[in-house]
Amino acid sequence: MKNTFGTSVALTLFGESHGEMIGAVLDGLAPGIAVEEAAIEAALQKRRPQGAVSTARREQDPFRIVSGVFNGKTTGTPLCILIPNENKKSRDYEATRFLARPGHADYTANEKYHGFQDYRGGGHFSGRITAALVAAGAILQSALREKGIRIGSHVKALHGILDREFSDIEADLDRLAPMPFPVLDAAAAEKMQEAILTAKAECDSLGGILECIVTGVPAGVGEPWFDSVESLLSHALFSVGGVKGIEFGTGFDMANRKGSEVNDDFRMENGKVITATNRNGGINGGITNGMPILFRLAVKPTPSIAKQQQTVDFSAMENADIAIEGRHDPCIVHRAAAVAEAVTALVIADLLAQRFGTDWLKGA
Amino acid sequence: MKNTFGTSVALTLFGESHGEMIGAVLDGLAPGIAVEEAAIEAALQKRRPQGAVSTARREQDPFRIVSGVFNGKTTGTPLCILIPNENKKSRDYEATRFLARPGHADYTANEKYHGFQDYRGGGHFSGRITAALVAAGAILQSALREKGIRIGSHVKALHGILDREFSDIEADLDRLAPMPFPVLDAAAAEKMQEAILTAKAECDSLGGILECIVTGVPAGVGEPWFDSVESLLSHALFSVGGVKGIEFGTGFDMANRKGSEVNDDFRMENGKVITATNRNGGINGGITNGMPILFRLAVKPTPSIAKQQQTVDFSAMENADIAIEGRHDPCIVHRAAAVAEAVTALVIADLLAQRFGTDWLKGA
Amino acid sequence: MKNTFGTSVALTLFGESHGEMIGAVLDGLAPGIAVEEAAIEAALQKRRPQGAVSTARREQDPFRIVSGVFNGKTTGTPLCILIPNENKKSRDYEATRFLARPGHADYTANEKYHGFQDYRGGGHFSGRITAALVAAGAILQSALREKGIRIGSHVKALHGILDREFSDIEADLDRLAPMPFPVLDAAAAEKMQEAILTAKAECDSLGGILECIVTGVPAGVGEPWFDSVESLLSHALFSVGGVKGIEFGTGFDMANRKGSEVNDDFRMENGKVITATNRNGGINGGITNGMPILFRLAVKPTPSIAKQQQTVDFSAMENADIAIEGRHDPCIVHRAAAVAEAVTALVIADLLAQRFGTDWLKGA
Amino acid sequence: MKNTFGTSVALTLFGESHGEMIGAVLDGLAPGIAVEEAAIEAALQKRRPQGAVSTARREQDPFRIVSGVFNGKTTGTPLCILIPNENKKSRDYEATRFLARPGHADYTANEKYHGFQDYRGGGHFSGRITAALVAAGAILQSALREKGIRIGSHVKALHGILDREFSDIEADLDRLAPMPFPVLDAAAAEKMQEAILTAKAECDSLGGILECIVTGVPAGVGEPWFDSVESLLSHALFSVGGVKGIEFGTGFDMANRKGSEVNDDFRMENGKVITATNRNGGINGGITNGMPILFRLAVKPTPSIAKQQQTVDFSAMENADIAIEGRHDPCIVHRAAAVAEAVTALVIADLLAQRFGTDWLKGA
Repeated sequence: MKNTFGTSVALTLFGESHGEMIGAVLDGLAPGIAVEEAAIEAALQKRRPQGAVSTARREQDPFRIVSGVFNGKTTGTPLCILIPNENKKSRDYEATRFLARPGHADYTANEKYHGFQDYRGGGHFSGRITAALVAAGAILQSALREKGIRIGSHVKALHGILDREFSDIEADLDRLAPMPFPVLDAAAAEKMQEAILTAKAECDSLGGILECIVTGVPAGVGEPWFDSVESLLSHALFSVGGVKGIEFGTGFDMANRKGSEVNDDFRMENGKVITATNRNGGINGGITNGMPILFRLAVKPTPSIAKQQQTVDFSAMENADIAIEGRHDPCIVHRAAAVAEAVTALVIADLLAQRFGTDWLKGA
Repeated sequence: MKNTFGTSVALTLFGESHGEMIGAVLDGLAPGIAVEEAAIEAALQKRRPQGAVSTARREQDPFRIVSGVFNGKTTGTPLCILIPNENKKSRDYEATRFLARPGHADYTANEKYHGFQDYRGGGHFSGRITAALVAAGAILQSALREKGIRIGSHVKALHGILDREFSDIEADLDRLAPMPFPVLDAAAAEKMQEAILTAKAECDSLGGILECIVTGVPAGVGEPWFDSVESLLSHALFSVGGVKGIEFGTGFDMANRKGSEVNDDFRMENGKVITATNRNGGINGGITNGMPILFRLAVKPTPSIAKQQQTVDFSAMENADIAIEGRHDPCIVHRAAAVAEAVTALVIADLLAQRFGTDWLKGA
Repeated sequence: MKNTFGTSVALTLFGESHGEMIGAVLDGLAPGIAVEEAAIEAALQKRRPQGAVSTARREQDPFRIVSGVFNGKTTGTPLCILIPNENKKSRDYEATRFLARPGHADYTANEKYHGFQDYRGGGHFSGRITAALVAAGAILQSALREKGIRIGSHVKALHGILDREFSDIEADLDRLAPMPFPVLDAAAAEKMQEAILTAKAECDSLGGILECIVTGVPAGVGEPWFDSVESLLSHALFSVGGVKGIEFGTGFDMANRKGSEVNDDFRMENGKVITATNRNGGINGGITNGMPILFRLAVKPTPSIAKQQQTVDFSAMENADIAIEGRHDPCIVHRAAAVAEAVTALVIADLLAQRFGTDWLKGA
Repeated sequence: MKNTFGTSVALTLFGESHGEMIGAVLDGLAPGIAVEEAAIEAALQKRRPQGAVSTARREQDPFRIVSGVFNGKTTGTPLCILIPNENKKSRDYEATRFLARPGHADYTANEKYHGFQDYRGGGHFSGRITAALVAAGAILQSALREKGIRIGSHVKALHGILDREFSDIEADLDRLAPMPFPVLDAAAAEKMQEAILTAKAECDSLGGILECIVTGVPAGVGEPWFDSVESLLSHALFSVGGVKGIEFGTGFDMANRKGSEVNDDFRMENGKVITATNRNGGINGGITNGMPILFRLAVKPTPSIAKQQQTVDFSAMENADIAIEGRHDPCIVHRAAAVAEAVTALVIADLLAQRFGTDWLKGA
């Protein structure tokens, strides 16, 4: 189904970096969900490049909702958000169009689209497309919040510098929500930003690990085969450019542990079943257990670097050199937080609508 | 779509551990694919518990193909494989049915199915179901092999013990194919098995990392949104019980690296575009670049351990203790290799059939 | 998705006429639905050839449910029903395998499957496959009935002979339920059967119109685009062999009418909104309005006739003659009633599960 | 998937009659398809109200393609077409918002969307939405034409007045293509238009039968279960407002015929297999046989009529009267031709892309 994801609640994305507009169609929304432009703007602001750790490009995202909202609330029919591309750079992409940027999709896009792809600024592969996704996700996040479900994320690791773990989750989520560089430990945040600036000065870039959490999802949601909660989240998240790994709960460290060290004991607490630990990230057998859903994403260093690299010219089919000019992000991990949250909101909203019906998200 | 996965080539799974049969329906196969029972039996043998590092249970998998094959070849209509459950243990599951085994789906299944689930031996959540998946995958793997595409895997890490990396990939795949404990470095294999036996003696279990490789997939397959190759593989693989993480290429280690360290330079080789390194695991922008697809799975320690654990009785809603009796695998990482390969074959076959049409897999 | 249909509640069909077994996998069922073998047997009996108006073949359908049912109730995991093919005729199909029977799928199957299809007795195209569908549908019909939803059908027309319209719907449904030749007007039934016997004596066959009704579906179910109730019903019903037309409410006769003659006035009745007439068949804008869903299917005459016909041998690629021997149904319209009801049950159950959640069908 | 239809080639629709814009996203297009605005404009013109037999409203459809086209050709990524709603009438919809117009979706929409739907001018249920569909379909029709596949339609019947059958199909298609009132027999066309004007003068409306034909589709496309060609076409076509019936080939008249009268003999012609007649509408067993695909749609009379009707006020829950004011179409059958052709193009393009791969439509 390509550029559409979801079963009961589904998102369709379109647009290219240097086309006229990008946009998203959000379908299957319950009717009656309040759509507040301020919440959308706040999410877009979080994704937007800010400060020296991001690109100097100043993207404007003057979004318009052209369908699916009436009198400030969702109608239940498809909601389309458009974001014009206003700040397109006019430089000549012809000179470099056949030079495959290492780590980018230039070569694979050419193999798939036979040269017809819009090669300017990454085209449909550009991170620009995620602005529409973030706008759509903001609507879902607000609706989920009304049902007691919150989604948040922080940069857990960056070039060896670690943020602290979640402790008081609700308070941590409150703190992270407005941060353009979402890190819980201020000292770690400072070191991370220094590392990014150093990489930038070296004409290089850095990757990192984003940790996401979802609280308030009831137990019993998801499927054993093939739509486990892990399956659906990973499917959607891996389509975000730059994500190269995902792990739930203890994740890869489980390879070093014993069963007794990673099983989560069940316990009664205030008449409710909980787990004493959360090494399985809130999911057993593909199904939520009522604990917070916890996962981490490996986000690769921005592939666009000013350092000289070796590559091929896939038109001439010969070796070539490349040094990527322009204003690029030396790191996108912190900006990816807004995108990961939007994608997570889509998956969770869809799972709940499938489980409890299409009206569930509307609330009381 | 729950127990069905795939678009052009799709698999449906059914059955419970202690029901009459388990089975799989494989749909969308090209007509004319040779179906050799020996290849299916070999794959099932690889999944079957063997030696002291696995359960002492001796599963028989006397599979029968009851549709979709005529004169030894696929017809193009749905192929159904049935595997009767012959060696069901008759012990009383009633006593423990409300005792949530830590790390298992007992509690979450009860929340989802309201007590109607078949709780004997894990029911539909049992690893037993993967036998049908492996049988179906063996047919796909043979067909892919005819088209020059190979899939293999090895235990990359187990309790701190590392296998070597792939070097001569084709030779490595030849060696791994028949191994019940697929490890490239014989010394590492021995240490891993010792570690498993030690854990077993301690009434405990071990997890590990499985590394998979796919060679021969042409460039240009996959989608930017939302069906990236990573997306589809992770979706299908996370539905395999025990998988808690997946990473492609350099994966999580990208968090510690610079862009210049993880970008793969493109180079010409024998008139063909290749990448000098393969840190992106054969995928750029969600689309294959013609290099081997490489990924690793975090497989958790078997949750069934004989050690006493704390839990709840979710019928009485009170705390309880549990020590899981019976013949359990002290480690399933090596047995998961056959399952991961089968799932990978499904995803790759589906991607290729979507890209090149439903007859593609039939070959010349 | 080929041999699987449905979103929340989905059915997968497999098998060939002369293979070992046919079967169906029913997925997405709510847990806790009572599965009564007598109800399944009754539905299969209705589909089975009975009396002189059907084939003299005596099919046995000794079905077995091998998964998804535990202690007499659905578990919520996939339910697989198997029906062995016990009464396979052993005659030689080789002689006629390349002779395209007019009105059958022999030629088109060969174009699609390149000669690898199982050509014996129609293979996967055989009406035999519908036995599995009817068995699965019977489970759904029982569950729907518990929720106040009933499905029934009658032969509305056959060779110019008309049955009366539904009048007291509930009483009519009671009468039709057990009838092997479901016609409301006994005199019409007799004439229809005489017409069939006459056609049979002429080595010919007859078609007819099947009228189906669904009562008790709440208003507000279905989608404007693209999953209207008409869309989903027609999609599923057109895959039943022999169906060549479908119309809802007044249907094709609307071409002869004025708006004022086919609009259904809304009226209040006992505090509830109803329509004074039901010319739109219970559906406005693709969405149920709470009135009975009413539609008619055009079922073509059985294409297997003993009369000599002209055709081609698609192996030799030359003209040929054919007279189809064997025990064939001179009419399948009455037997198609059980199939149409099963398909309708699948669509309605799926729509309701999508609308109200996966537990909806379980009832109180 | 609600407002998205298609597997390999998929269409998503959004918008409301009185919202800011309507639009369509066309995904899965082969790269390199020429996109000519003139062809889109011609299709929109055909759908647009023209002459006294249509509404006096003068819709403008100043479409813009904002993604997926680069240098005049499809890129292979989603193509989004936007059409602003420029000619919105500003009259007050509040007074009538709870008055259920007979034959319309006002009441069912309210049941589904709980009052949050955009009730102005039919909202998302308005025929206005089909403008975006027609624009998208025009692109597909041009691409199909390049592959030798043509789609056309005519008003076969209207209030008892019949058009002639297709004879020289290619010549008939040439004639029909530009006609705003597509009828092959000029005398019939005149009578039909007179009948419409008479109905209009009576404050009433008329329905009719639209007959569609598709030539050039190769044999072997479609599925036995559940994606027969009839299934997919009917699914998509029934979501068009006003369609209440569909029949293929001889269709409902098969109920009056014998097998020998409706079977199509196969014959050799110029070394190719054809059928001597086409009573099955080009489809056997759900799969194309290479003959023209032929079907008819029952289109109901426009429900908006000026005559007084009885209805309910579903807010007050009481009986009421209604006479629908405004400029309404006295008949939409002729305008529906452009819509039916667009929907047909989508289904055929999708089927071919699934069968032969995503590049198939690109052509040489």
